[in-house]
Amino acid sequence: MTEAAAPASARAEEGDGGLVRVRLDLDYDGTDFAGWAAQPGQRTVAGVLLAGLGTILRTDPEQLGLTVAGRTDSGVHATGQVCHVDAPLGAWLALPGRSDLDPPEAMVRRLAGTLPRDVRVRAAVLAPPGFDARFSALRRRYAYRVSDHPAGPPPLRRHDVFDNRRPVDVAAMDAAASRLVGLNDFAAFCRRREGATTVRTLLEYSWARDDAGLAVARVVADAYCHSMVRALVGALLAVGEGRRPVDWPAAVLAGRVRDSAVNVAPPHGLTLEEVVFPDDAGLAERARQARARRTLC
Amino acid sequence: MTEAAAPASARAEEGDGGLVRVRLDLDYDGTDFAGWAAQPGQRTVAGVLLAGLGTILRTDPEQLGLTVAGRTDSGVHATGQVCHVDAPLGAWLALPGRSDLDPPEAMVRRLAGTLPRDVRVRAAVLAPPGFDARFSALRRRYAYRVSDHPAGPPPLRRHDVFDNRRPVDVAAMDAAASRLVGLNDFAAFCRRREGATTVRTLLEYSWARDDAGLAVARVVADAYCHSMVRALVGALLAVGEGRRPVDWPAAVLAGRVRDSAVNVAPPHGLTLEEVVFPDDAGLAERARQARARRTLC
Repeated sequence: MTEAAAPASARAEEGDGGLVRVRLDLDYDGTDFAGWAAQPGQRTVAGVLLAGLGTILRTDPEQLGLTVAGRTDSGVHATGQVCHVDAPLGAWLALPGRSDLDPPEAMVRRLAGTLPRDVRVRAAVLAPPGFDARFSALRRRYAYRVSDHPAGPPPLRRHDVFDNRRPVDVAAMDAAASRLVGLNDFAAFCRRREGATTVRTLLEYSWARDDAGLAVARVVADAYCHSMVRALVGALLAVGEGRRPVDWPAAVLAGRVRDSAVNVAPPHGLTLEEVVFPDDAGLAERARQARARRTLC
Repeated sequence: MTEAAAPASARAEEGDGGLVRVRLDLDYDGTDFAGWAAQPGQRTVAGVLLAGLGTILRTDPEQLGLTVAGRTDSGVHATGQVCHVDAPLGAWLALPGRSDLDPPEAMVRRLAGTLPRDVRVRAAVLAPPGFDARFSALRRRYAYRVSDHPAGPPPLRRHDVFDNRRPVDVAAMDAAASRLVGLNDFAAFCRRREGATTVRTLLEYSWARDDAGLAVARVVADAYCHSMVRALVGALLAVGEGRRPVDWPAAVLAGRVRDSAVNVAPPHGLTLEEVVFPDDAGLAERARQARARRTLC
């Protein structure tokens, strides 16, 4: 697992083989990250991951193309994030060094020895033809967790559960949420961006109690505009606490303009749990459609 | 919830009503605590809890009797810890102040406003007659969580899951664990203490994978000697990794002397999940038996 394990020939091969696209499945605790996107002077998931990839691939991180399925904001967690990196073929093949691992296993183990403990690449595979972590994805699933216990969230869960000490009516929230599902203009729940559409397909939005008694939102959409999930959660907390009626979020949606009465819920309750891709045959076609139809934000 | 909410008469009542025993159910993230027991100059759960109780009861913490069901070591967590405090009756009755809460609700809310976020008192009730958190308890249940994923534990679980990157055979561990169950002398798994018995009843010891793929030990006993659970886990990890045969832990047990081949597993994988008490009628009798039979450590 050390640098010395890679044979000297690795460097010679680096320039001659072109690039391979590698799919990475990763998790992170967003607490100490300023979000996904690399930014100078900030500790970000992409920045930390690129530094680790640069080390194990012996490549300038700036030369590595890294593309993510779901850009997460500062403080947001992921248990099912997906990204891809375009790596020099020679560096990929050299990863196992003198071990009997194959390159995917070697990448996971060497990244585990390099990355800090708040980000984990649990799988690395050669991407199938046509795969693009951003444009091939069919849908993204998020969870938002709320504790409404008067004593606060369970201490071991305080990093990924929002502490809302006013009791919430989860059945009312679930009823209100179901009225937002469908192909809609979510401008009321989006931060405006010039030239970007706010039309999205919300495939699922439900609220239920989990085994620990937490109120948990499950949100599935093809894609999201900026702060959309957290605004959808903020609107529903107003219903859950009885500050707004059950039909209020649907009325806000119908208004189609950003509504200042909608609070954006804090980031640390939010976790990206899953990104779903089509089977291999559908990857390239999906990417073509997604690129043509919209500008993702 | 502020100090000002307690009526001035509270202080006058403090001296005249004797003491009430209050049962507290609490959780904590043991990461930043030097264990349960109050120690000068150390941040401990008992120390932090006594400071909070002292504030809300307006009583010198040194005057509050605090007794716990399961003394946990430095770094060990709890999701089901139980303790009792003997509080001045007047201070207890004064807790609601001008609110319409009853004293148990008021204690939970006021402690939540006082305690740091890594410890939570989720319930406070007047203890039934004969209740003693330590001596009335019938049994304590612990869980020990191990990740054997080559990339390490899930980042959001890294505080309560032991990172063991060598794969373990959970079926072999479970088979070996079942052979330790029963009324036995656990001297082989205990740190020796002068005059203390090492005979304990291990009611359950099993290993299984949870939904997240973690290897989880479930350990239930009437009581434990020092570092017993973590030594039982360490011995079984040797079996899980194939370093020792399935019948080795039972052979170590039969040896009845502390075995240096048994590693004590690190504390942060361990969580006290439940303390079971008899129904109210059985409390005093259980406490009498437990006091007579053994010195707890």
